[in-house]
Amino acid sequence: MATSNQSYKNLSGSYLFPEIARRTKAFAASHPKAKIMRLGIGNTTEPLPPSIVKGLSSGVKKLSNIKTYSGYGDEQGNTELRRRIAEVKYKKAAEKIEADEVFVSDGAKSDTANIQELFSQDSIIAIQDPAYPVYVDTNVMAGRTGKAKENGQYEGIVYMPCTEQNNFFPELPHKKVDIIYLCSPNNPTGAVATKEQLKRFVGYALENEAIIIFDSAYERFIADKKLPHSIYEISGAKKCAIEINSFSKEAGFTGVRLGWTVVPKTLVTEDGASLNAMWNRRQTTRFNGASNISQEGGLAALSAKGLKETQKVIDLYMNNAKVIRKGLESIGIKCYGGVNAPYIWIKCPKGMKSWDFFNKLLEECHVACTPGSGFGPSGESFVRLSAFGHPKDIREAVESIKKNLKI
Amino acid sequence: MATSNQSYKNLSGSYLFPEIARRTKAFAASHPKAKIMRLGIGNTTEPLPPSIVKGLSSGVKKLSNIKTYSGYGDEQGNTELRRRIAEVKYKKAAEKIEADEVFVSDGAKSDTANIQELFSQDSIIAIQDPAYPVYVDTNVMAGRTGKAKENGQYEGIVYMPCTEQNNFFPELPHKKVDIIYLCSPNNPTGAVATKEQLKRFVGYALENEAIIIFDSAYERFIADKKLPHSIYEISGAKKCAIEINSFSKEAGFTGVRLGWTVVPKTLVTEDGASLNAMWNRRQTTRFNGASNISQEGGLAALSAKGLKETQKVIDLYMNNAKVIRKGLESIGIKCYGGVNAPYIWIKCPKGMKSWDFFNKLLEECHVACTPGSGFGPSGESFVRLSAFGHPKDIREAVESIKKNLKI
Repeated sequence: MATSNQSYKNLSGSYLFPEIARRTKAFAASHPKAKIMRLGIGNTTEPLPPSIVKGLSSGVKKLSNIKTYSGYGDEQGNTELRRRIAEVKYKKAAEKIEADEVFVSDGAKSDTANIQELFSQDSIIAIQDPAYPVYVDTNVMAGRTGKAKENGQYEGIVYMPCTEQNNFFPELPHKKVDIIYLCSPNNPTGAVATKEQLKRFVGYALENEAIIIFDSAYERFIADKKLPHSIYEISGAKKCAIEINSFSKEAGFTGVRLGWTVVPKTLVTEDGASLNAMWNRRQTTRFNGASNISQEGGLAALSAKGLKETQKVIDLYMNNAKVIRKGLESIGIKCYGGVNAPYIWIKCPKGMKSWDFFNKLLEECHVACTPGSGFGPSGESFVRLSAFGHPKDIREAVESIKKNLKI
Repeated sequence: MATSNQSYKNLSGSYLFPEIARRTKAFAASHPKAKIMRLGIGNTTEPLPPSIVKGLSSGVKKLSNIKTYSGYGDEQGNTELRRRIAEVKYKKAAEKIEADEVFVSDGAKSDTANIQELFSQDSIIAIQDPAYPVYVDTNVMAGRTGKAKENGQYEGIVYMPCTEQNNFFPELPHKKVDIIYLCSPNNPTGAVATKEQLKRFVGYALENEAIIIFDSAYERFIADKKLPHSIYEISGAKKCAIEINSFSKEAGFTGVRLGWTVVPKTLVTEDGASLNAMWNRRQTTRFNGASNISQEGGLAALSAKGLKETQKVIDLYMNNAKVIRKGLESIGIKCYGGVNAPYIWIKCPKGMKSWDFFNKLLEECHVACTPGSGFGPSGESFVRLSAFGHPKDIREAVESIKKNLKI
């Protein structure tokens, strides 16, 4: 008799984004004339720049010719792409990142979800609160937690609150933990860790033989030259940190699907297992490589020309962020983030709850946002606005908020 | 202190295909003048047909234009593609397959590896022996087995031997099991299940509330009109079977990456969980959809023109299979499969062991094959040859075997 994975029953509610889609759809159905402006999901909107289109097209063209056709590639990714990622993205690393420490994948979401498989079932997990729901949900599904408590937090997870008081970067875990998820630039708060802040966590991890899972999917949005783009800029991080990154936001690959994970060969668990060897085994056994077309696009995105072109798109999005901050601040709404990250973390006026403010923004201004409470209890009374959108649409949404929001 | 997933330590040896690559590379290094002919891995070699190239190119083009650019799609796949798969591939199903029972993915390997996550840790798994290593290895990594025994089989798995005696289709499991992996057309033996054979398994599953994971990645290679292409051609299968399929072999997408899994809404575990809802939750939480470019290619592959064009490529590969069978049989080697499947299952002459015959073929004929024992102990003394290759190369490899093999 087949029985189901009981851990799934611990999952509370449905995944955040489908729930937003459901509510937005319901509102649209009952207000057929309303033009709904979506400032919620962090979905890229600008077309791919020419050199990337050329890279992808060349990937397709190769497949049409008997001399250049290729089938299965290495599960770990195209060798040249691994080399280029190591070179371009980890120039400032304290210890050099090697090409065979870089594993190409179909995106950061998959890797973020899969990485927990390498660790023992009884690992104690520390997660920022609020955080990208995948960190928590995949550990719930893997059976590392109990049920959700009344406040939405799960038994067994060590939450690290990120609040106005700590400027949205957490204190060290209040008890000893094994695995620590950190995200900087942060989704959803838009906060970026300083070198000093990361140093503290690396120090903790080295001292406690913990492993940091560092999600740097938004690093290209950092403008401030003093802020670190990678945890490997911190000395010692190659002995305690895995880093996950993506082409989704920096190159508009949300639909194209391409990301990577760095698992240093110097990373060894307390029981002597090489995490690089384990991830290699995991990927070769359970994955068959990212699309060879997408990988050609990735190579183009990391060329000198590609980097210049994607910078322009990033500038466009970051200008959107400015427009949002300025507009909302002009009506007295408190904004965080949006300076070195494409997310603006909005404090709901008058202490409103996140979903109440979500409904209010939708009903009064026809703007869809992402409720902060969906990222964890410390996100309550915040909403996330995203800078991904056409500038015209962003301006229109901000004008609508300025004009129609009743506060 | 981070500790590793101890189940990984139960995995014996390295994954089959990297091991073949390693040995072949070593031989090439010590015999720099030898031209090695690869008849091992089932990797497609023929270029993509025009209508598919057009579909993929149109996918890229859409991303270059602000009006047609798209980012994240539904994690479950493009709605039109799900509909077309349901229509085109399940015409003969005893009960209709609905579009929302079809989940598009980056390939059958991922789905095959991930599907076990839906089931309880103590599930008893039945697997054909020999079989595609992913079924076994992912259950080992998930902790559902003990260590490997001396014969290579893992404690806790119920093996279903596929031998010359039973014509390479197994008897029902000898003890009560919860999950049954079946693959037809079979990798590696090339055997195809008849309707009667599948009926027996569906009957067993319904009676014992077991779930069948049916891998039909090679169904397009079936020529015999009486043989079933899908387990859903059997009445009742929608109550007990999940089916996994792929564009890899039928449309040359081994590098493009696209597959799908059918999880019927009528599939419920003994404890009342809907597997369709669980897989939906799994995919929305842990996966971000297949590449939108690949999905455009998939749509083209399932158009009337696409189907006609891919049929030509399939015919080419199946002609290769004929050449291999005929050539090897002419020197007295016993061959199975290769008629409704692109794999030919070769009985090693004089009872030789698989790896010994692998070495012999490599050294004497410069032909790389896949050792049958790599698929499980019942594969011992067999090797798998693959019909994927340019006809010229296949003929050359067969000629070399005929000329140089010392038996």
